[in-house]
Amino acid sequence: MRILLTNDDGVYAPGLAALHAALNGAHELSVVAPESEQSAVGHAITLADPIRVRLLGSRTGFHGWAINGTPADCVKLAVNQLLPERPDLVISGINRGANVGVNLLYSGTVSAATEASILGLKAIAVSLNSHAAADYGFAAKFAAHLVRRLPQLPASPLTPLNVNVPDLPADQIKGVLFTRQSQARLVENFIERKDPRGQTYYWQAGETMGQDTGLETDFSALQAGYVAITPIRHDMTHDPVLAELRSSGMDLPPR
Amino acid sequence: MRILLTNDDGVYAPGLAALHAALNGAHELSVVAPESEQSAVGHAITLADPIRVRLLGSRTGFHGWAINGTPADCVKLAVNQLLPERPDLVISGINRGANVGVNLLYSGTVSAATEASILGLKAIAVSLNSHAAADYGFAAKFAAHLVRRLPQLPASPLTPLNVNVPDLPADQIKGVLFTRQSQARLVENFIERKDPRGQTYYWQAGETMGQDTGLETDFSALQAGYVAITPIRHDMTHDPVLAELRSSGMDLPPR
Repeated sequence: MRILLTNDDGVYAPGLAALHAALNGAHELSVVAPESEQSAVGHAITLADPIRVRLLGSRTGFHGWAINGTPADCVKLAVNQLLPERPDLVISGINRGANVGVNLLYSGTVSAATEASILGLKAIAVSLNSHAAADYGFAAKFAAHLVRRLPQLPASPLTPLNVNVPDLPADQIKGVLFTRQSQARLVENFIERKDPRGQTYYWQAGETMGQDTGLETDFSALQAGYVAITPIRHDMTHDPVLAELRSSGMDLPPR
Repeated sequence: MRILLTNDDGVYAPGLAALHAALNGAHELSVVAPESEQSAVGHAITLADPIRVRLLGSRTGFHGWAINGTPADCVKLAVNQLLPERPDLVISGINRGANVGVNLLYSGTVSAATEASILGLKAIAVSLNSHAAADYGFAAKFAAHLVRRLPQLPASPLTPLNVNVPDLPADQIKGVLFTRQSQARLVENFIERKDPRGQTYYWQAGETMGQDTGLETDFSALQAGYVAITPIRHDMTHDPVLAELRSSGMDLPPR
């Protein structure tokens, strides 16, 4: 397959290198990734600034480009401008840190996969539940395994899969579960400080917290030692509430 | 009501001033908005940089703060740090330009409303379908009208409402429709240029295009001259595909 790889930790991220190594040889790989870390950029795209691209040299071991944009920019620019042919699959990752629950909305990793699905491409986002010196070996091996299994899965081509892998030795991982997005979220903790000139500033120092939901959701399945895979959609319509609102109706203000 | 106002075009945006003017007097208003334009930042939050805040002076006519962060940062910081009490409602807008279809994912305006709902607050995003010298008068009047109508609407408090107002004289607006998010999207058009040193860069010059879906969706209702209101959710789980995947199951790779 022709596979486009991207990453929100940037083109030099070890998670990207591990993913590339696990797929190289079996597939035709291209890399289009940000020059530098772009975590928590959400589904940002660059409209107000020019986007620069840099062809990666052979020393990187990649065929591809680094760009000064977001993960969603990478996918748009790769598919519309840089790649000679459309890829068969886009993989975003392997992210350092889980992408579960409400945090999906903040995730550049997931947004790259969503952007690919908007462009009509199959897509996978892969994250490892570790912020320490991470070992991406098993997560990369799992990504390659999932790519081989894709033709047998019933998922629609426009449904990106959000994969989270536990940070455990391979023989302690219990299995694979298909999950819902949980309500786990970054619970705010702003730390107030003064700069040397006496001006106030804040650090966002929150941590992700969630509730145990058995094995139903991404957060709980991951905590319990399973690889959690959530199929995601980009239609944000709240259908039940829409039905209620339509039966209620609304008027214009007096003009 | 205590209402928090924000805007992704920044604290000096005329759409914010119009919204403030339409609600002032009847409500207790606070403003927390970015120092500068933050369009298309998606649901970004600031983790890697400190967030500075600046108390707005009385000359602005606002009670509130400007911050060097994204619209989602504004809501988080306002609710957790800056405001003495939780607001009863958060309104994001009035955005210059429609926020319909897939573009919701790129929208700082909509993300501020979504962030408020994540924090358990009622929220509204308001956008005007104009990029020219816009007249926010009717859109602001409609926002104030919607605030008065809110108690009669059946929407869950955790369902933000995404409101798009046509750029038409008030007497030509046909009514209010509750809509679905359409598949309208920014269709890519990258313009390649060379800088004075011969380096290539790109401008993203795409335009939003959509298909006519009768009056079912935000895009079509807006084009037809209606105020379009879409209830949105932040759970991105694709439920039908999840059910299929669960019945299929998946194994781990050999370890």
